[in-house]
Amino acid sequence: MAVGLKQPEQLLPVAGVTLSAVATGMRYKNRDDLLLIHLDEGSVTAAVFTLNRYCAAPVTVAKQHLERHQPRVLLINAGSANAGTGKQGLESARLTCQLVAEKAAIQEEQVLPFSTGVIGMQLPMSEFTAGINAAMQGRGQADWYQAAKAIMTTDTQPKAFSEQVQLGDVLVTVTGIAKGSGMICPNMATMLGYIVTDAAVSADVLKEMLQTANGRTFNRITVDSDTSTNDALTLTATGQAGNQVVDDFNSSQAQALYQAIHSVARQLAHAIVRDGEGATKFIEIEVNGGSTEQDCSAVAYTVAHSPLVKTALFASDPNWGRILAAVGRAPVSQLDIEAVNITVNGVSIIANGEPAADYSEEKGQQAFTAEEIYMRIDLGHSRHQHIVWTCDLSHEYVTINADYRS
Amino acid sequence: MAVGLKQPEQLLPVAGVTLSAVATGMRYKNRDDLLLIHLDEGSVTAAVFTLNRYCAAPVTVAKQHLERHQPRVLLINAGSANAGTGKQGLESARLTCQLVAEKAAIQEEQVLPFSTGVIGMQLPMSEFTAGINAAMQGRGQADWYQAAKAIMTTDTQPKAFSEQVQLGDVLVTVTGIAKGSGMICPNMATMLGYIVTDAAVSADVLKEMLQTANGRTFNRITVDSDTSTNDALTLTATGQAGNQVVDDFNSSQAQALYQAIHSVARQLAHAIVRDGEGATKFIEIEVNGGSTEQDCSAVAYTVAHSPLVKTALFASDPNWGRILAAVGRAPVSQLDIEAVNITVNGVSIIANGEPAADYSEEKGQQAFTAEEIYMRIDLGHSRHQHIVWTCDLSHEYVTINADYRS
Repeated sequence: MAVGLKQPEQLLPVAGVTLSAVATGMRYKNRDDLLLIHLDEGSVTAAVFTLNRYCAAPVTVAKQHLERHQPRVLLINAGSANAGTGKQGLESARLTCQLVAEKAAIQEEQVLPFSTGVIGMQLPMSEFTAGINAAMQGRGQADWYQAAKAIMTTDTQPKAFSEQVQLGDVLVTVTGIAKGSGMICPNMATMLGYIVTDAAVSADVLKEMLQTANGRTFNRITVDSDTSTNDALTLTATGQAGNQVVDDFNSSQAQALYQAIHSVARQLAHAIVRDGEGATKFIEIEVNGGSTEQDCSAVAYTVAHSPLVKTALFASDPNWGRILAAVGRAPVSQLDIEAVNITVNGVSIIANGEPAADYSEEKGQQAFTAEEIYMRIDLGHSRHQHIVWTCDLSHEYVTINADYRS
Repeated sequence: MAVGLKQPEQLLPVAGVTLSAVATGMRYKNRDDLLLIHLDEGSVTAAVFTLNRYCAAPVTVAKQHLERHQPRVLLINAGSANAGTGKQGLESARLTCQLVAEKAAIQEEQVLPFSTGVIGMQLPMSEFTAGINAAMQGRGQADWYQAAKAIMTTDTQPKAFSEQVQLGDVLVTVTGIAKGSGMICPNMATMLGYIVTDAAVSADVLKEMLQTANGRTFNRITVDSDTSTNDALTLTATGQAGNQVVDDFNSSQAQALYQAIHSVARQLAHAIVRDGEGATKFIEIEVNGGSTEQDCSAVAYTVAHSPLVKTALFASDPNWGRILAAVGRAPVSQLDIEAVNITVNGVSIIANGEPAADYSEEKGQQAFTAEEIYMRIDLGHSRHQHIVWTCDLSHEYVTINADYRS
């Protein structure tokens, strides 16, 4: 079902990072579901996590560990989210880190745990333990494609991208993977995403790069308005490329590296929407001219979350009245109907708050039939802007979420 | 599909109110789609309207007319919402009032127009004009059951209720009708609702009764989070019952009358949810103990709007992790996970923020399989409370909104 999303290609290894992926059978059969990302000593990692207050046990543990040490292993399982699991869930998350730490001869706090899958079930510890043992033995035997596949839940396609950029005379690599398809409305982070580079970057600049890229990509996508309990995104720099340490975000080298990181993050975020549960359309909603950027954002998300807009787009029905109704109910400080202009794939729908004079049902039909929908809403007040990406609401979304306990 | 919703029965006429309903053919075939509610001279009417800023032309005109005169005719059409129709739409709405006023020998401002149906199409004036002529000739020939049917759009059942209450030695009657099934998330009003009583009530008290009842009933329902452009609710008192004028909201007679009005409003609001597009479950979400009533409301609506909660309920799947995730992402000022308790149909799911010790999948399955779901979420902070009513999200919802231009 994924909209315009190809299989990952030309994924580049990153010096200082090795991978292992194994099948534990803890929920899925005949597929990898446990991924270990091993980071060489000297690697620097930044992370952002879900703001859902019912955050999962691994989120709590990962935050605590990251405060104390730079991580050496990112430990990720798919199938069980270890969320809503109380004290036992916290103990399980810590125990999995201990198990990895013993095998790898590192501190428990140097392991960051991440889980995704069904909320409310305890981690099956015997399968998990066996999986960790197998993964530690098979260290370095997985590639990024296998890694991206191992963290999937309702995803229909693995999501992974690489970029390269020249920093002075050094070519550095950025590779990232992510998973996510439903319960997607990140708030400060995405479902699960891991981006690594071999560039040398200071911890402060790395953090700034992560937060900036996250704010412009993962934090602007929504499939179904449901922010997950397990969202996490990490950015690691191993420093093995040999470049001079990037320690000023405003330097030209930092900006070049940022562009590569942003590109990987954007492609991953878009891939999540393109593979949104039941998605048949990829939809960009750009709102300009609100009194504040927050107002632009509020209008964009109100339209993006409207079940009526989403079902009309699924049907390729130019029922633009529903877009209008969503704009009109957005929680904004100021909205002058007379100043509103709306286009869909270049077709003018609303001009100065009224149905556009040259609009025809035929033009509308053509615009709404496209697989990729670019909606531009101008509120006419300012130069503020906000863009969000979403998908439509189809029968398949209901099927996936009513038939499968995801 | 309507959940536990019977055909209206024992609908009582109200002295001072006559009805006419006719088929104009402007959108639907072989059914009434134009309703005139004629109010005798001396009637007092209060009204609340949608806060959607893209409010429909009839909403704008009705507000203007209500400021100037007490209405004598409520003029309602189904099939075309006359919203998003610009200046032409405003002219059409005014013209329909003029046509009625001429035939009825009253002022144009004594007619309040209401429309519901597809957004973005102009009113077909020739069918409308013929319809008004026919309706004025057939004045008094329709009953409340026919009236409730004439205003339906995607509703599968007419919605109408009556109550009677003794005010001193006078028996007064309250009868109301409403329509609504999709684009339901009223903000200060519902889709369309008309409640009338033959009691004598002062204009101020009538307004207070309407706003109070509305705030506790129609403003607490949601089918799909989409606030309509055309929401309106009116309450009319004809004063023909012969009771002493009710002019103090705190008097015992006012409270008795209010209870009857509230009862009709609540039954109508619940009927809209029970007949929500594609609904297979009726869901009450009661949130207690938030730091403020607003926090209780925010949690209730976040759960009520979550597509993942709604699809799990459609599937009768006790996937309570999704409820937890929705509570956790609600925009509230304070949330202590350890204080949260959740029950569904009496089954304890979460106790003090953790999975309840005596919960079992079997108990959960039984609770979630019921057609009526009563969810209680206690946040543990205070005595504040908020209740909302909603329905599930089914395949039928997508079918209705993707196959039919509603």
